[in-house]
Amino acid sequence: MPVIRRLPIDTHPENTAFLLRRGNGYSAEQFQALRKIRVTGTGCEILATLALVDDEAIIGAGEIGLGEQAFRRLGLPEGAEVAIAQARPPASLELVRRKIEGETLGEAEIAAIVADIAGHLYSPMEIAAFLVACAGFMSTPETLALTKAMVEVGNHLHWDSPLVVDKHCIGGIPGNRTSMIVVPIVAAHGLICPKTSSRAITSPCGTADVMEVLAEVDLGEDKLADVVARESAVLAWGGRVNLSPADDVLISVERPLRLDTFEQMVASIISKKVAAGSTHLVIDIPVGPTAKVRSQDDAVRLRKLFEYVARHMGLVTTIVFSDGSQPVGRGVGPVLEARDVMAVLRNEPDAPADLRDHALMLAGHVLDFDPAIEGGSGYARAAELLASGAALAKMEALISAQGRNPVKPVPGKHHYDVVAPASGRIAAIDCERIARIARSAGAPLDKGAGIDLLHKVGAPVRQGEALFRIHANSQTGLGFACELAAEASGYTIA
Amino acid sequence: MPVIRRLPIDTHPENTAFLLRRGNGYSAEQFQALRKIRVTGTGCEILATLALVDDEAIIGAGEIGLGEQAFRRLGLPEGAEVAIAQARPPASLELVRRKIEGETLGEAEIAAIVADIAGHLYSPMEIAAFLVACAGFMSTPETLALTKAMVEVGNHLHWDSPLVVDKHCIGGIPGNRTSMIVVPIVAAHGLICPKTSSRAITSPCGTADVMEVLAEVDLGEDKLADVVARESAVLAWGGRVNLSPADDVLISVERPLRLDTFEQMVASIISKKVAAGSTHLVIDIPVGPTAKVRSQDDAVRLRKLFEYVARHMGLVTTIVFSDGSQPVGRGVGPVLEARDVMAVLRNEPDAPADLRDHALMLAGHVLDFDPAIEGGSGYARAAELLASGAALAKMEALISAQGRNPVKPVPGKHHYDVVAPASGRIAAIDCERIARIARSAGAPLDKGAGIDLLHKVGAPVRQGEALFRIHANSQTGLGFACELAAEASGYTIA
Repeated sequence: MPVIRRLPIDTHPENTAFLLRRGNGYSAEQFQALRKIRVTGTGCEILATLALVDDEAIIGAGEIGLGEQAFRRLGLPEGAEVAIAQARPPASLELVRRKIEGETLGEAEIAAIVADIAGHLYSPMEIAAFLVACAGFMSTPETLALTKAMVEVGNHLHWDSPLVVDKHCIGGIPGNRTSMIVVPIVAAHGLICPKTSSRAITSPCGTADVMEVLAEVDLGEDKLADVVARESAVLAWGGRVNLSPADDVLISVERPLRLDTFEQMVASIISKKVAAGSTHLVIDIPVGPTAKVRSQDDAVRLRKLFEYVARHMGLVTTIVFSDGSQPVGRGVGPVLEARDVMAVLRNEPDAPADLRDHALMLAGHVLDFDPAIEGGSGYARAAELLASGAALAKMEALISAQGRNPVKPVPGKHHYDVVAPASGRIAAIDCERIARIARSAGAPLDKGAGIDLLHKVGAPVRQGEALFRIHANSQTGLGFACELAAEASGYTIA
Repeated sequence: MPVIRRLPIDTHPENTAFLLRRGNGYSAEQFQALRKIRVTGTGCEILATLALVDDEAIIGAGEIGLGEQAFRRLGLPEGAEVAIAQARPPASLELVRRKIEGETLGEAEIAAIVADIAGHLYSPMEIAAFLVACAGFMSTPETLALTKAMVEVGNHLHWDSPLVVDKHCIGGIPGNRTSMIVVPIVAAHGLICPKTSSRAITSPCGTADVMEVLAEVDLGEDKLADVVARESAVLAWGGRVNLSPADDVLISVERPLRLDTFEQMVASIISKKVAAGSTHLVIDIPVGPTAKVRSQDDAVRLRKLFEYVARHMGLVTTIVFSDGSQPVGRGVGPVLEARDVMAVLRNEPDAPADLRDHALMLAGHVLDFDPAIEGGSGYARAAELLASGAALAKMEALISAQGRNPVKPVPGKHHYDVVAPASGRIAAIDCERIARIARSAGAPLDKGAGIDLLHKVGAPVRQGEALFRIHANSQTGLGFACELAAEASGYTIA
C-alpha cells in the first residue's frame, strides 16, 4: 500500500491526488479515464481527481501525493498507508442523472445528494451537472428539500431569545449596502441580530467583502457568539462558521459559471438564516429592468417561493419589493461602498440619500418585529436611532468588537473617468453592466477596485462630462473595465 | 513576464497551470477564485485551471508551470515568455447560460460554443453545464446546428467514390459487435467502407476497444487511407484522425457523468460519419425494455431525429429497429467479444447464432445500397460472402493491413461464476445491468475483463447452475463486479 505524501499544491476547490504514471503497480491511466480515485485510510476516505506524474522527484513509486485540499480532508499524517482504487461515482450521482432526465426528486434523494456534496465526493463537473439540472427545473418541494438538507449537513447557531432578527437582500443592485446600516440600527434598539453575510458570487461585492474593509469578518463561532453577547449583533462572513458547507461547495461552482437561480437563491439564503438561528427575517427584493428580478410576475413568484420555504422552515418573514431601477448610493466595490455606508451612519449632509432611505425602510420593517413597538412605528424609531448617532456608535462598537481593520481604506490607485458621449439627461443606468464593469476592475478581491457613480438617473449632463469613475489597483483590471465601458457604459442619455 | 516551465503532470482532459502562491508579483488567489487564467504567448493563447504551489522546488517565482495538456496546446518551447492574466470566461459561455435559462440557440451561437470547446477554452465544469443544459431540452434544429458545427471544426476524409458505405449501432446492447462482421462482408463485396469507431462511453466496450484486441486501431490519416486503398475498408478508432475534436472533448465529460442523450448521440454519430466521408449509412436501433431505446415511441422519435439531421447533412440512411430485449452473442468485454466475432467469421458451428443473424441482416441492408445489386438481394449476398469464407479472408487482410496485435487475447485471469438462485426458465436478461457488471469488472480498459453469458433467455436452468462468468485481471475489478452481481445479477428466472 502506498504512503501519503503532502504536496504543497492548492487545487481549490477540488481534491487532487498525484500518482506516478509508471512503476507503482497500478495502471494509472485506467484510474484516470474515469477521472477519480478513492483514497481509503484507517477510518477515513476521500475521492480525488487524479493527476499522473512522470517525474519521481515530484512523487515516488511507493507514494501517493495529495494536494492541500485532499490532504486536509483525508486528515491522516504524511507517511500513513492508504489503499487506492478506481472510484465508483458517489451513489447519489444516479439521482442527479434522474434529475437531468427530468424527474422530480424526493426529500431523501436530495438529502443524499447534498450530503455527498458537503462530503466533497463530487467533482466540479458533477456539481455543475447537479446545478444546471436544477436550473432547468426545480419544484417548490424540491427547493424546500434542498434547504432542509443544506441545514442538516451544516453547523447550527443557538441564541437564547425568542426574537432573533435578520435582514437579507437578494442582491443584483450595485451599491445597495443596506445591511451595514440596518444592523447597527436594530442592534442599537436592542434586538439580537447575528448577521452573517456571504462574499460576492456574481456581483462586485457582498456585505462580507465590504465589512471586511472596516473590520475582521472571518470570525470563529466563539468569537461571533462573544460579539453578539456584548453588542447584540455582528456583521460577519458566514463561511467560517460553516453554516451551510454544502452551499459553500455549490457556490464554488456557481461563481465561475455565473449561475444564480431563484431556487438556489432561496435554498441558500433560508438555509443559512435557519442555521444561524434567526426567527424573524426581512427579505428585500429589488425589482427593475436590469435587476435580478425584472418583472412583477417574477417578483411574486420569488416571494411565494421564499414564503413557502420559510414557513416550512419555521421562519417568520416580511418580504419587501424595492426600487431596483438603478444602483443605490455612489460607490460600487468594497472600499467605495464602505465609504458610503459610513457617510450615512455619520449623518453627513452629502451622504447618498437613496441608500439612507432604503436602509431606514428596511430597518423599520425589522423593528416592527419587536412586540414592544407600536404597530407601524418601526420606521420612525429607525430614523431616530440613525439621527441620534446611536446607530453610528453601535457600528463603531461592532467594528471594535470584531477587530478594526488597521488598513486605511483607499480607492484603487489607478482610475479612469467614463464621460457622457452627448449632452442630455440620464435616462437609465444598467445595474448589470455597472456590476460587470466594477467586477472586471477587480472587485471584490481587489478591495479598492470598483466604480464611483458621479451622476444618477434624472441628472442633466454635458457632453464630455464624467459619468462615473473606474478605480482599480491593477492596470490589467482597469484595462478590462475600460474595454467593457467602451463597449457599453451602462448609461443611457436622452 | 514569467517563462514557461513544462511540468511532467498529466491532468487530462484539462489544461492546468501552476503558479507560485507568493513572490511572483501576482495575487494568485485572485486568479484562482475564478479558477482560470489566460496564458498568452506570441501568436498563441490558452486558458488553464490554476493550481497554486507553495514550494519553489516545483515551480519558481519567475516561472509558470504548464501540465502536459496545457504545454502541448500552447505549443511554445520551455523558457518562452508568456503573459498571464485572470481569464475572462469564453464569450460563448454567455450563450450556454442562455441555454440553461431555457432559450433555444441559433446555428451561429452553437457554432461559437463548439469552436470554443474544440479550442479547449472550456473547463470540464463548463462543458458539463453545456451538456446538461442540452440534455434538458434541445430542439431538432439545434441538434442539426451542433452536428454541422462539430463537422466544421474537425478534420474531413475524402474518398474518390460516389458510394462510401458505413453502418452504426447506437449501442446499449452488450455483445452486439456486428460492425466487425458487417465491414468484412461488405468490403469483400467491394464496397468502400472506412469504418471509424469510438471507444466505450458508458458501455463495457466500443468496437474500437474490441478490434484493438486483434489489430492496431490507432491509425493516422495516411495509414487509414492506405488500408482503405488496399482493402476498401478499415476498422479503426476515430479519435486519432480527429474527425470530431469537439465531440472528443464532450465525451471526456459525458463519460464520467454517464450522460448519453438522443440529441448528443445523433450529433456525435452523424458528424463523425460526414467527416469520415460516408455517403450511405445503415443505423441500427435496438429496442428493448433495458436497451437505450425502450419504447416504440422513443425509437420513432430517435429515427426521425436521425433522418432529419442526416438528410440536411446530405447523408443517405437506412434505419433499422432490431431486437434489443437481451444481450447479443455470449461475450461482453473486448477479448470475449473478439472471440465471438471470429467464431462467426470462421463459421464455427457453436458461434453465437443471434450475433451472426443480426450481422447478416445489417450487412444485407448495407449491400442493398449497391446499385449493382438486385433489389432486396443484399441479405442473400451477405450470407454467401460469410459462408464462403470471403468475409473471414477480408477480416484477416484488414488485421494484417492495420497491424496484427501480437498479444494473444486471453480472458481475465480471475473469474467468478454467478449461479441460478432457483431452478426455472430464464425469463429476461437486463442489458443495462450486465453492461454495468462487465464495466465494473474493468472493461473496456482491462481488455480481458467482462462477462461470458452461459445461458440466454428461454433456457431452462437448475438451481446452483452457472448463469454467467465474470472475468477480470484485477481482484478489485472482480470484487466490484461480484458485489454488483450479488445485489442483482440481471437475470430473471421464472
